[in-house]
Amino acid sequence: MASIKDVAKRAHVGVGTVSRLLNGSGYVSAETRNKIERVMKELNYTPNELARNLYHKKTGIIAVLVPNVLNPFFAEFVDYVESELYHAGFKMMLCNTVKEVNAEMEYLDMLNRHIVDGVITGVHSLDVEEYKKIQKPIVALDRYLGEHIPVVTADHRNGGRLAAQILIKNGCTKILHFKGATEVESPYHERHFEFERIAQKNHIRIHSYELERNRFDSEYYVEVVQDVFSKDIEFDGVFAVDRLAIECMNETIRRNRKVPQEVKFVAYDGTYITEMVEPKMTAVVQPIEKLAKESVNLICDLISGTSYVNKQIMLDVEIRKGKTTLI
Amino acid sequence: MASIKDVAKRAHVGVGTVSRLLNGSGYVSAETRNKIERVMKELNYTPNELARNLYHKKTGIIAVLVPNVLNPFFAEFVDYVESELYHAGFKMMLCNTVKEVNAEMEYLDMLNRHIVDGVITGVHSLDVEEYKKIQKPIVALDRYLGEHIPVVTADHRNGGRLAAQILIKNGCTKILHFKGATEVESPYHERHFEFERIAQKNHIRIHSYELERNRFDSEYYVEVVQDVFSKDIEFDGVFAVDRLAIECMNETIRRNRKVPQEVKFVAYDGTYITEMVEPKMTAVVQPIEKLAKESVNLICDLISGTSYVNKQIMLDVEIRKGKTTLI
Repeated sequence: MASIKDVAKRAHVGVGTVSRLLNGSGYVSAETRNKIERVMKELNYTPNELARNLYHKKTGIIAVLVPNVLNPFFAEFVDYVESELYHAGFKMMLCNTVKEVNAEMEYLDMLNRHIVDGVITGVHSLDVEEYKKIQKPIVALDRYLGEHIPVVTADHRNGGRLAAQILIKNGCTKILHFKGATEVESPYHERHFEFERIAQKNHIRIHSYELERNRFDSEYYVEVVQDVFSKDIEFDGVFAVDRLAIECMNETIRRNRKVPQEVKFVAYDGTYITEMVEPKMTAVVQPIEKLAKESVNLICDLISGTSYVNKQIMLDVEIRKGKTTLI
Repeated sequence: MASIKDVAKRAHVGVGTVSRLLNGSGYVSAETRNKIERVMKELNYTPNELARNLYHKKTGIIAVLVPNVLNPFFAEFVDYVESELYHAGFKMMLCNTVKEVNAEMEYLDMLNRHIVDGVITGVHSLDVEEYKKIQKPIVALDRYLGEHIPVVTADHRNGGRLAAQILIKNGCTKILHFKGATEVESPYHERHFEFERIAQKNHIRIHSYELERNRFDSEYYVEVVQDVFSKDIEFDGVFAVDRLAIECMNETIRRNRKVPQEVKFVAYDGTYITEMVEPKMTAVVQPIEKLAKESVNLICDLISGTSYVNKQIMLDVEIRKGKTTLI
């Protein structure tokens, strides 16, 4: 394989000139540039990207941390993020943190070791203090990690309100409400507080069932639904994250209760699976494509030197009516 | 930040000695090693990974190319591959090739430019000739790319046989068979040929509907199902990939035909979504975790210098009975 020396020799210029051209790091005349580029083509010369990255202290790689890409919300998020990053000239390194102890820490460390230029994190495992130590480009999805780390989030408070309102409008009086683990501080949980507040204000009986942290697997959802039914909890309305809402609806149908006549369902996230089941689920839909776009815009800003303090981008959610509510 | 020179100076050794230690590239006495490591700690020295990678011509990164991570088969595959790679000491760079023209070529080029150490490809877009030019570690999922590129695949021929046999055993006489685009040569298609062969041998009427290449989106599946129903194609059994089987079943139920009494369904891939719908789908299940493990084992072999010629690893599939068949 041709080296930079071979190129320089054949183009009758110094190695430094070729290097300046490759790295865009100084003046090279148009004539010399043309000559070097022609020789590179003739010799089929491939610049060593690693060497160039070393020079620029940039790798063009962004690490994206999600708990589990099997969760359709994160699958859609990752799908859009990868596409947005690609168009911004970056490659995506993906990490599923649920399976790996310490993976989150390891990826953050890769920022320091110049392996990735930035991190977009959608996980809730590491102590916030760890993030405060790092002065590098990090963007958080749905989590507060310190004033210098921008947050992208949907308007979950309004999401909780919309869910409560539609169940109340549909005449539900005993609502089963599956809520995320509250031990982690996240804007994502505000839907639960608002949902409970609206329900209580309207004197609706509400049974809140708190889920374990970082459990997104099907087995866990089956277990939770079995637990609910074994406890004979009465309900005529359900509010839960997509997959759990679906699991609960299927068990409800198997127990010969009619959906939506006897039990109404509202799912949260509104990923494609809520449109894949029969009846289609009424859902609060997160703007996943926009969340991805804003996350990528912010990480690009940080990499190009912009600083933010207490930056938060909050995007609208909306209700998509399916067949699991009547009105 | 401390540099390698600062470390060398304070440890009273040459820069070359520190470099030998960091890179494991030559003899360093135990005493000197201890001294250098103590100084590194004192100075909070972080070795520049890029520089080390340049030295070793290794990056520790594997590119994984899939058409679309929203497809649950690829989501599961990616989930397992990431975990296996992590335990083998590699990070995963993920690319969804369906959205990006030229992305596949670009990632292959990254092999040449020393950005990734290997590629695991599950996509079917680029001309096989492009792969033949590359003498670097590449592993293919379900595709023949040349004799030096190992293939990992499930026993799709047997998968097609199992699907045909169960529909026949259930008394189906008019089967709707959705088949992948045949323009691409892939072991994945062998299920279709075997399915048709067994059906014909048993004098079953079969309507084969060929799908477009690289279309895995929900909109397309909805369109296909509407097309089938608008053409009044008669069927009492259906064989299709998971999401399409589900879409077809839902439309069948909406048109008031009973599943499984009037129409039987067998899905192919058997990802988690086939267990998420009601009734649960009978499915031919691909061993996705094993496919991921074998792909990672092979890429590690290739990176460590093993050569393979016409290597193919074929893994067993199995039928998982759900409620969309009677027996």
